[in-house]
Amino acid sequence: MTHSTKNPRQVAVVGATGYSGIELAQILLRHPEVQGATFYVRETGGAQCLAEMFPQLRGVGEAPLRTLSAEAVIESGAGTAFLATPHEFSAEIAPRLVDAGIRVVDLSGAFRFRSAHTFSHWYKLPTPHEGRLAEAVYGLPELYASDIAGAKLVANPGCYATSAILALRPLNEAGWIAEGSAVICDCKSGASGAGKELRRDLHFVELDENFKAYNLFSHRHTPEILDHTGVAEGSLVFTTHLLPLARGILSTIYVTLKQAQHAGDIEAMYRKFYAGRKMVRIWAAGKLPELAHVAHTNFADLGFALDKTGRSLIVVSCLDNLGKGAAGQAVQNFNHMLGIEEQTGLQ
Amino acid sequence: MTHSTKNPRQVAVVGATGYSGIELAQILLRHPEVQGATFYVRETGGAQCLAEMFPQLRGVGEAPLRTLSAEAVIESGAGTAFLATPHEFSAEIAPRLVDAGIRVVDLSGAFRFRSAHTFSHWYKLPTPHEGRLAEAVYGLPELYASDIAGAKLVANPGCYATSAILALRPLNEAGWIAEGSAVICDCKSGASGAGKELRRDLHFVELDENFKAYNLFSHRHTPEILDHTGVAEGSLVFTTHLLPLARGILSTIYVTLKQAQHAGDIEAMYRKFYAGRKMVRIWAAGKLPELAHVAHTNFADLGFALDKTGRSLIVVSCLDNLGKGAAGQAVQNFNHMLGIEEQTGLQ
Amino acid sequence: MTHSTKNPRQVAVVGATGYSGIELAQILLRHPEVQGATFYVRETGGAQCLAEMFPQLRGVGEAPLRTLSAEAVIESGAGTAFLATPHEFSAEIAPRLVDAGIRVVDLSGAFRFRSAHTFSHWYKLPTPHEGRLAEAVYGLPELYASDIAGAKLVANPGCYATSAILALRPLNEAGWIAEGSAVICDCKSGASGAGKELRRDLHFVELDENFKAYNLFSHRHTPEILDHTGVAEGSLVFTTHLLPLARGILSTIYVTLKQAQHAGDIEAMYRKFYAGRKMVRIWAAGKLPELAHVAHTNFADLGFALDKTGRSLIVVSCLDNLGKGAAGQAVQNFNHMLGIEEQTGLQ
Amino acid sequence: MTHSTKNPRQVAVVGATGYSGIELAQILLRHPEVQGATFYVRETGGAQCLAEMFPQLRGVGEAPLRTLSAEAVIESGAGTAFLATPHEFSAEIAPRLVDAGIRVVDLSGAFRFRSAHTFSHWYKLPTPHEGRLAEAVYGLPELYASDIAGAKLVANPGCYATSAILALRPLNEAGWIAEGSAVICDCKSGASGAGKELRRDLHFVELDENFKAYNLFSHRHTPEILDHTGVAEGSLVFTTHLLPLARGILSTIYVTLKQAQHAGDIEAMYRKFYAGRKMVRIWAAGKLPELAHVAHTNFADLGFALDKTGRSLIVVSCLDNLGKGAAGQAVQNFNHMLGIEEQTGLQ
Repeated sequence: MTHSTKNPRQVAVVGATGYSGIELAQILLRHPEVQGATFYVRETGGAQCLAEMFPQLRGVGEAPLRTLSAEAVIESGAGTAFLATPHEFSAEIAPRLVDAGIRVVDLSGAFRFRSAHTFSHWYKLPTPHEGRLAEAVYGLPELYASDIAGAKLVANPGCYATSAILALRPLNEAGWIAEGSAVICDCKSGASGAGKELRRDLHFVELDENFKAYNLFSHRHTPEILDHTGVAEGSLVFTTHLLPLARGILSTIYVTLKQAQHAGDIEAMYRKFYAGRKMVRIWAAGKLPELAHVAHTNFADLGFALDKTGRSLIVVSCLDNLGKGAAGQAVQNFNHMLGIEEQTGLQ
Repeated sequence: MTHSTKNPRQVAVVGATGYSGIELAQILLRHPEVQGATFYVRETGGAQCLAEMFPQLRGVGEAPLRTLSAEAVIESGAGTAFLATPHEFSAEIAPRLVDAGIRVVDLSGAFRFRSAHTFSHWYKLPTPHEGRLAEAVYGLPELYASDIAGAKLVANPGCYATSAILALRPLNEAGWIAEGSAVICDCKSGASGAGKELRRDLHFVELDENFKAYNLFSHRHTPEILDHTGVAEGSLVFTTHLLPLARGILSTIYVTLKQAQHAGDIEAMYRKFYAGRKMVRIWAAGKLPELAHVAHTNFADLGFALDKTGRSLIVVSCLDNLGKGAAGQAVQNFNHMLGIEEQTGLQ
Repeated sequence: MTHSTKNPRQVAVVGATGYSGIELAQILLRHPEVQGATFYVRETGGAQCLAEMFPQLRGVGEAPLRTLSAEAVIESGAGTAFLATPHEFSAEIAPRLVDAGIRVVDLSGAFRFRSAHTFSHWYKLPTPHEGRLAEAVYGLPELYASDIAGAKLVANPGCYATSAILALRPLNEAGWIAEGSAVICDCKSGASGAGKELRRDLHFVELDENFKAYNLFSHRHTPEILDHTGVAEGSLVFTTHLLPLARGILSTIYVTLKQAQHAGDIEAMYRKFYAGRKMVRIWAAGKLPELAHVAHTNFADLGFALDKTGRSLIVVSCLDNLGKGAAGQAVQNFNHMLGIEEQTGLQ
Repeated sequence: MTHSTKNPRQVAVVGATGYSGIELAQILLRHPEVQGATFYVRETGGAQCLAEMFPQLRGVGEAPLRTLSAEAVIESGAGTAFLATPHEFSAEIAPRLVDAGIRVVDLSGAFRFRSAHTFSHWYKLPTPHEGRLAEAVYGLPELYASDIAGAKLVANPGCYATSAILALRPLNEAGWIAEGSAVICDCKSGASGAGKELRRDLHFVELDENFKAYNLFSHRHTPEILDHTGVAEGSLVFTTHLLPLARGILSTIYVTLKQAQHAGDIEAMYRKFYAGRKMVRIWAAGKLPELAHVAHTNFADLGFALDKTGRSLIVVSCLDNLGKGAAGQAVQNFNHMLGIEEQTGLQ
C-alpha cells in the first residue's frame, strides 16, 4: 500500500553503501529540516540500522536500513529520494519513483543529458527514456536554481563537471574567451571520486606515492562541461588525474582571453556572477585556493592568475568531490526543491 | 628433457607478479653473481619478457618471462629457484624442484615449521609432507648461516617474524628475560606486507589516513616467533597493525628483565651477538631507528630504551618487509647457499 | 572597563592559530548554544576577522579576531575562555581570567596536576601557583562530570592520556588488573598532535612513508595516566609513536588480568562503566575500532581482544586527537560547565 | 698545498645534507667507477663520516665528511665536484674550483643561463660572472652530450625543466607545433623538490591530503624551458603544483599541432629523436607513464594521447625529481664528462 501523501522532508537514500551514500547519510542525519531518513541497500546482511552496517556511524547514523526496492521506497511515505546508485539502476528506478510522486535527486549520470544518444555514447549503456531526460533538470544551483526549485527529477552533476563549469561559465557568458582558442581543463581528483569498487589502481600500494593521468580525451564528464559552459567541442581539452589522497578535486583551467583584462576586472566579473551564491567563494586576485580549503565542505573555491599580457588566464577551481561534487550538492539541490535556504545542513 | 647439470647462479623466480616477486626481480637483475634469471607467472598474457608485463621495468627487467610449471623450471637449467607463490602452491612444487636438483628458497609459509601440524593449524591448509619439513632450513642467516649454506630447501621467514626474532633471540639466549613475564611484540606494517590481492581494507580510500590493529592473538607468524626466540607460548603476546604507507615494519617490543641492566651492557650484548653480521645494525643506546632508515634496504635495525630501574626494556626493531622481510632476505639466503658474501647485490 | 556581568555563552578562544584553536573555531561557530565567539591571537597582521587570517574559513568563520591580552578578554564580556596557548602562557593568564569571573577551559598541561612539582618535573617549566592547581578540575567528563559542572578552571586532558585513561580506569576500578604486572600502553598518533610549529621530523618528506617511536619513558602525559587510572608508576609502560597521517590516536593497551575473564564480561563491564556516556563507544567483543571510525568526531572508541586463557587482554582505544583529544573534549567540558547536553555542537 | 694532479674519478660532494646531496651519496657510493667520494657540509657537528650524520647510511655511506670550504675541496685531490648548494654559494665557489682544475657539476640554477640578466631577473640574486656563464654547458645529456663531454662546468638542469624540455624539444625540432598556439605545461611535483628547508606549506599536516598550484607565471624554471625547447616566450604557459608525496614530477603538456598527425607517427618521431638514449623511455601510443614507474630511477618516461582530429596532443612526461631531475642526472653528466657509459651507477 502506498502512502497517499508524501512528505518531501522525509527522505530515502537509495544505495547508501558507496562513498557518496555514506556522505549523504552524514549530512542528512544532521540536517535540521529533514524529518526522517531511511537508507536502502542491496544487501542489508540482516542489519536493521545504518550504524549496524557502518559501526563508525553509531551515535550519528541510527537510521533505519532497508532492502532496496522501488516498492519499499514508494510505500515508505518518503517524498524525496536520493539515488546514489549505478547509472543503469538509476535510469530504471528514477522514473518509477517520480511517477509515484517522489521528487528525485539522482547522483548518477543517467539523466544529465538532453540527448539519450549522448548518454549511450559516453557511458556505453542502453539509452534511457528520452521523455524522462527532457523532464530532468541539471542540478547546478548556481546556474539553474529556479528550474531546480520546480523539478521532479534533478540530475546531480558530475564532480569534475561541477569544478570546470563553475570556472568557465562566467567567462563564456562574459564573452571573454578568444574564439577558436583551446580551453584546457587539467583536473586532479582524490581517490574517493573513483568509487568504492575494488580496482588494481586503487589498491593502496598502487596509488600511495603515485600520480597518473587517465581517460584522456574520453572522460564521461566531457559532455556535461560542453553543455553547461557553452565552450565548443573542438575547443575543450579536458584531462583527469588521480591524486594519492581521499577527497577533493583541483582543476587548473587555461583560457586565452579575447582582449587583455585587468586582474581586478576578472575578480569583479566572478564576484558579480556569483553574487548571493554562498557556496561559491571567489578568491582575491593573486591568491589561490587549495584542496585543504574545501575538504569536508560544500564550497567550491575559485581563484586565478593572469599573465603580464592580461590575455593568458589560469583559473584554479577546488571542491570536495563528495561535497560540492556529489552528496553536498545533492542536498543543496534538495534545499532548493523544498524552498529552504540553500546552505541548510551544509555548514 | 632435463638439463643434466644445473647452474646454481642461473635462477628461476616463480610467481613474479606479487610485490615480493617484483622486488626479487629488481634485486636479482642487478646481482653481480647471477648468471641469468627467468621469471615464471601463471598467465603471461602473451608477454615474452618481464618488462612487457611491467613496463616500468623496461631498461631494468629485460628478462625472459615464461608460463609457470614445474617442468618448465626443471628443464631450464636453473640451479636455484625462488618461490614467491601461495603457501599451497609452494608446498606442492618445492619438493619437485628439490628432487630435480634445484635449490629452493621458498618465500611462503609452507616449510617454516618442523611440525606439519603447526602449519595446518595456523594456515588452515592441508598438511605438507613431514619429511620435506625436516629437510627445510629456516632462512634467517643471522642465526642459521651454516645450515643455510648446505640447504636444498630454505624456508624464508615471515616479515613480522624476522623483525621480532632478531630483537628477542639475543635477549633470550643471554637469559635476561624475567621468567613468566609477558613479552609484548607490538608490530606495525606497511600495506605491501598484506599482498597485492584486492581487499576492501587495502582499498586506497579505506587505508589512507587510517590505522588499525588486526589478527590479535591469531597471526600466522606467531609460531615462527615462538620457535626461533625460545620465548614460551604463554609469555608471548604478538599483535599486528596496518600502517598507511607502502613499505616497512616497525616492532615495539616490551621485555621485563630478570635483573637490572645498564644500557651500555644491553648495547654491548646486541653488538656481540650480531658481530660480523652486516645486515643487522645496532643503534647506540638512546637512539632509535625509524622506518625511513630501512626502507628500500636489506637492513634490520635494532634500537632500545631502558627505564630508570633498568628492568623495563623496549626494543625497537625496523626492517623493510619486502627487503629483509622477504625478497632481500631470500637473496641473502641465496648468497649463503652459494658461498658468496652475504651482502652481494643487496646494497 | 570591565563588563560587570559575564555571559558564559559568550566565548573567547585564546590562541586561535594552532590546530586545536582552529578546531575550536570550527566547533564553536556551529554550536547552537554559543552566543558569540571572539578569537584572540598574538599577531593579527591587521586582520579583523578569523576568516581573513584563515581564508578557508570564509562563510564559516566570520568571527571577530583580536590581539591577545588578558585585558581584552576580560573587557569583552565573554564568560568562558578556551586557552589553546603554550603551557607557560596558560599558567600566567588563566588565574587572571578566573579572578575576573571568567570560566576557563585550558588545553595546555599547566593545570593538569595537583602537584606543582609534577608539572615542573615533566614540563621543565617554572612551577605554577599551587593554589590554582588545587582549584583546577581535570576535564575528563566521563570520570568527573559533576566536578566539571561546578568548576571555574578546567584542565583539558592530554590527547594520549585521554586515550589511555578511558581504557584503563574501568579495568582498574573493577580490580581486574593483576598486581605487579606491567600495563603497556603502546600509543600511535597522527601529526597534528605534535602541533603546528615547524620541526624537522614533521617536514612532509621526513614523515611521509615513515613511522617512529619517540619519547620512550619520558612522555609528559605519563603522570596524567598514573593519576587518573590508578595504575602504579612501576607498572605503567607508556610509549608514543608518530603516524604518517594528520588526525587520530590509536592506543594498543596490554593488560594481564588477575583472573581469567570471559569476553562477554569484559564488554559488559565497559558498557556498565560508560552507561549513559554517549561520547564513549564500546565495540562488541571481537570487533575493533580503527582510526577512520573516529576521525573528525568527538568519540572515543574502545574495543578489545582476549586470548584463549582469558587472562591476556588487549584493549584498542581510538580517538581524534583534535576532537576527543583536545578541542572536542574542551567543548564537551564547556557543555558540562553550562549544564547543557554534553553532545551539543559535537555531532 | 694543492694536489698537482686531480683524479676525475675521485669526487667531492659539496652540500651533502639536502635531499639532492643525500641522493648523490646513495648513487656515488655504489658507482663502480668512482674512486673515493668525500662529502662537505657547512657544519659537521663533529662527525667524521657521512653515516655519523645520517645513521641510516651506516653500511652504505661510510665516506669521509669534511667541513665545507673551497680550499678543502681543492686540496683533496678530487678531480670532480658536485655542488648541491644554494644558487649564490654555487655562483661563488664553482669558478674557484674550475680554476683549480676541478670539473664541476652544479645542481643549482647559477650557471643555467647564457645571460646573467636572466639569472638575476628570475632568481632575484646578484648577477654571476658573465664569462663563467659562457663556459658552462647545460647538462641535459640527451641534447648536449658532446658539449658535456668536454665541459669544465656543467649546469645541471632544473627538475621541472628537464621534464618539459624532454617532451617539447622533439616536437619543436620536428616543426609540428602550430605557430602562435599556446603550449601548456601543467606540472606536478612531490615535496622533495621543494627542498629540506622547513616551511609552513611543507609541514606534514599542511601538505597531507592537500594539493595546490603555486608560482603561476613566475616559476624560475621558465627561462630554461624557453631556452631549450625553442618555444616562444609568448606561447609558453608553465604551471607548477605540489603533490602530497615525496618523489616525482609528472607534467601534462598540451600542444596544438600544425597538421593532423597519426599516433604512430608521433611515437616514431619520439623514438627516433631518443634513439640510443637509454634514460628516456617512450611509451607506446595509448599507454601512459605514472610517477610510480620512475620513482627511485634515473628514467624520464614519455607517453602521449592524441584526440580524434589528430591535432590536439597531450604529452605526459614523468621523472623522479631527485633522479633524472637532480642527482641522477648529475651523475649521468659525470659519466659523459669521464667518457664512461651514461647509465653507469644509475640502474
